[in-house]
Amino acid sequence: MLAEIITIGDEILIGQIIDSNSAWIAQQLNNIGVRVKQITSASDDRQHILDSLNSAANRADIIIITGGLGPTKDDITKKTLAEYFNVGFKRDEASLKVIEEIFRRGNRPMLEINNKQADVPENCTVLLNKSGTAPGMWFEHEGKVFVSMPGVPFEMMYLLEEEVLPRIKQHFKLEAIVHHNILTAGIGESFLAEAIATVEDSLPSYIKLAYLPKLGQVKLRLSAYGEDEVALRQEVLKYADAITAVIDEYVVCSEDKALEVVIMEFMRAKKLTLAVAESCTGGYLSQQFTQHAGSSDVFLGGAVTYSNALKQSILGVSVATLDQFGAVSEETVREMAEGALNNFMPDYSIAISGIAGPGGGTAEKPVGTVWVSVAGGNKTIAKKFQFGNRRQQNIERAAVNAQIMLFKLLREEHA
Amino acid sequence: MLAEIITIGDEILIGQIIDSNSAWIAQQLNNIGVRVKQITSASDDRQHILDSLNSAANRADIIIITGGLGPTKDDITKKTLAEYFNVGFKRDEASLKVIEEIFRRGNRPMLEINNKQADVPENCTVLLNKSGTAPGMWFEHEGKVFVSMPGVPFEMMYLLEEEVLPRIKQHFKLEAIVHHNILTAGIGESFLAEAIATVEDSLPSYIKLAYLPKLGQVKLRLSAYGEDEVALRQEVLKYADAITAVIDEYVVCSEDKALEVVIMEFMRAKKLTLAVAESCTGGYLSQQFTQHAGSSDVFLGGAVTYSNALKQSILGVSVATLDQFGAVSEETVREMAEGALNNFMPDYSIAISGIAGPGGGTAEKPVGTVWVSVAGGNKTIAKKFQFGNRRQQNIERAAVNAQIMLFKLLREEHA
Repeated sequence: MLAEIITIGDEILIGQIIDSNSAWIAQQLNNIGVRVKQITSASDDRQHILDSLNSAANRADIIIITGGLGPTKDDITKKTLAEYFNVGFKRDEASLKVIEEIFRRGNRPMLEINNKQADVPENCTVLLNKSGTAPGMWFEHEGKVFVSMPGVPFEMMYLLEEEVLPRIKQHFKLEAIVHHNILTAGIGESFLAEAIATVEDSLPSYIKLAYLPKLGQVKLRLSAYGEDEVALRQEVLKYADAITAVIDEYVVCSEDKALEVVIMEFMRAKKLTLAVAESCTGGYLSQQFTQHAGSSDVFLGGAVTYSNALKQSILGVSVATLDQFGAVSEETVREMAEGALNNFMPDYSIAISGIAGPGGGTAEKPVGTVWVSVAGGNKTIAKKFQFGNRRQQNIERAAVNAQIMLFKLLREEHA
Repeated sequence: MLAEIITIGDEILIGQIIDSNSAWIAQQLNNIGVRVKQITSASDDRQHILDSLNSAANRADIIIITGGLGPTKDDITKKTLAEYFNVGFKRDEASLKVIEEIFRRGNRPMLEINNKQADVPENCTVLLNKSGTAPGMWFEHEGKVFVSMPGVPFEMMYLLEEEVLPRIKQHFKLEAIVHHNILTAGIGESFLAEAIATVEDSLPSYIKLAYLPKLGQVKLRLSAYGEDEVALRQEVLKYADAITAVIDEYVVCSEDKALEVVIMEFMRAKKLTLAVAESCTGGYLSQQFTQHAGSSDVFLGGAVTYSNALKQSILGVSVATLDQFGAVSEETVREMAEGALNNFMPDYSIAISGIAGPGGGTAEKPVGTVWVSVAGGNKTIAKKFQFGNRRQQNIERAAVNAQIMLFKLLREEHA
């Protein structure tokens, strides 16, 4: 079963907003066994919308349209849909009530253009939007389903979850899809491909393997398509096990989770805590952990010691070490990690010191030189990395590699 | 001049990643006067890619393709482009050297599939990718320009900025576009619109005003389209001055710069330094400053004190204050800011403590309650904010509002 997503509106095409709706819709459709064939962002232009509807309907069975449902003149999705289906309009009383209520609550005068928001093409089933003025619409036309929803994320999400997905499941007999993710770290994409070539070549045609690389990590995704979900899941697991057997030492986890989440879950289960001492990553590493709800029971906090003075005062790095070896050195980064351990009292600490660039490099320590140290369990390890010239990338790579170092150490010590 | 963007790869279509590349590319194209007609995300499927290329070329003059250039079997963009143009392959020696260097530096063995990454369709001009193994490619075909780039954001960004945009400007005669940005903070979009309505109504048809709201800030962008760039610039400045005259107190700057950059430039010019004490923002505020090159001469560092123990030990917040008022309180956040001032020795400090959510709220202090304090120049100010239920949004709003508080104080004290 194939679907397409069409987002309508200039704000995406001029880059004003990032289309995060489509990814979310695609995830939800995938979960119920509907594959998305194409995502199209089209302008608020009658002919362009008509063409997009035509080509989507040629490729897919379900066409999900978001956006272009506002009251102003530039929003023409509804009018264009009526033209596409060659029908007139009807007023939907339930939607009108919601709209009136929204204006009443907001104490705003209701204009004629607001009444018109309750008008929908005659051939549609209204999907009542309880939290906005634009109704959702469900159309069945020449064997295809068309759904139109507002582009406001939470309105769209509500309509998709409560109205659209249940109707799709009822309307179509859906193929089962099973995804299985394997997150690897510390091995490059091509080396990985070579290592698992035999397994990959043995995959049946209905199981696909995708490589999703991201700064020091590669996520492998097996996707199986077919009738019998239980059988598919068993088969996918068989191949996942075969892959894991070959690359076991690089596998971080077998779920669709970020590395820092896996680390925090591991530490939470063992009642371990973490603190960090960051120099060149400047808070990025902390944010990787703290962006996740519930991080506070593992992550105690840390220091961003950009200046040498703060490396001394907060972390207790010695003046002699900084003078003799410099801020970007094995000696300093070890003292930073141990200082974080002693001063912040976690079970484990991570310290990072490097030259993110673009300035600050020397012949001996060029931009991209980063030292990482991990301390805990009566052990302090340190490792030097040589990344490239891009500041943000160096920051992200340093943070990911520091996490990999911590994760390996944790697994060694708490197997 | 019209362009289309085609992103290739299943990771977008299954919703695993959000397509942020396209918005960025669209912005850059808009800046040089190229409008994006459609953005298409297509699967790693030969026929689908061919169809997408065909329809894009029917609508637009410039077709920008990203993704699908990895070394593995699921990446078929290059092969499909060669088929589309009906050409064979050539090996690009400059790209091969880059690839070899990347493997040498990474101390990894180079495989035959890696050599093949230097193979490109015969009719292309290679856009040398200095930081990745997939070369960029520029094609001219039947009056249209096709560009293929890797989907890895920083590689794509480098290639677009350094290679693609200059070539587009050279290849096509583009209409002049002059943009002028005014960054405002602390005033809502509709109040802003009301305040500048007279100026907005007086704009000639070839000058457009856009409101680009973003968490506590609204960027106003005047864009003028025409022949004579010098005349356009003068005229845009005239209207920008008229706008600024009305809303002067809310204007952060008249350049396309981020708030934290404006703050650091202001502080650098006055030889002032900054440190931070973060709780609920968890490193995000530090990262806002340190992501920018050269931040180290203003930003000394700071503490991420997630736990109360660290609020005491690093920042010197008193046990009595934490016990009596709690971590999220005016008293605590003031002590955090003053502790950062005393212990880290900057000229100014920012402290943030709040409940980012989704857990941790109470009736008295619901999720989204955030206290911000700014200290410096013999003054400590504090302010309470009540944001919503979304964790990441609360973190970002807290950081932006803390920056606005600092910026206002700096301007008052160092006018």
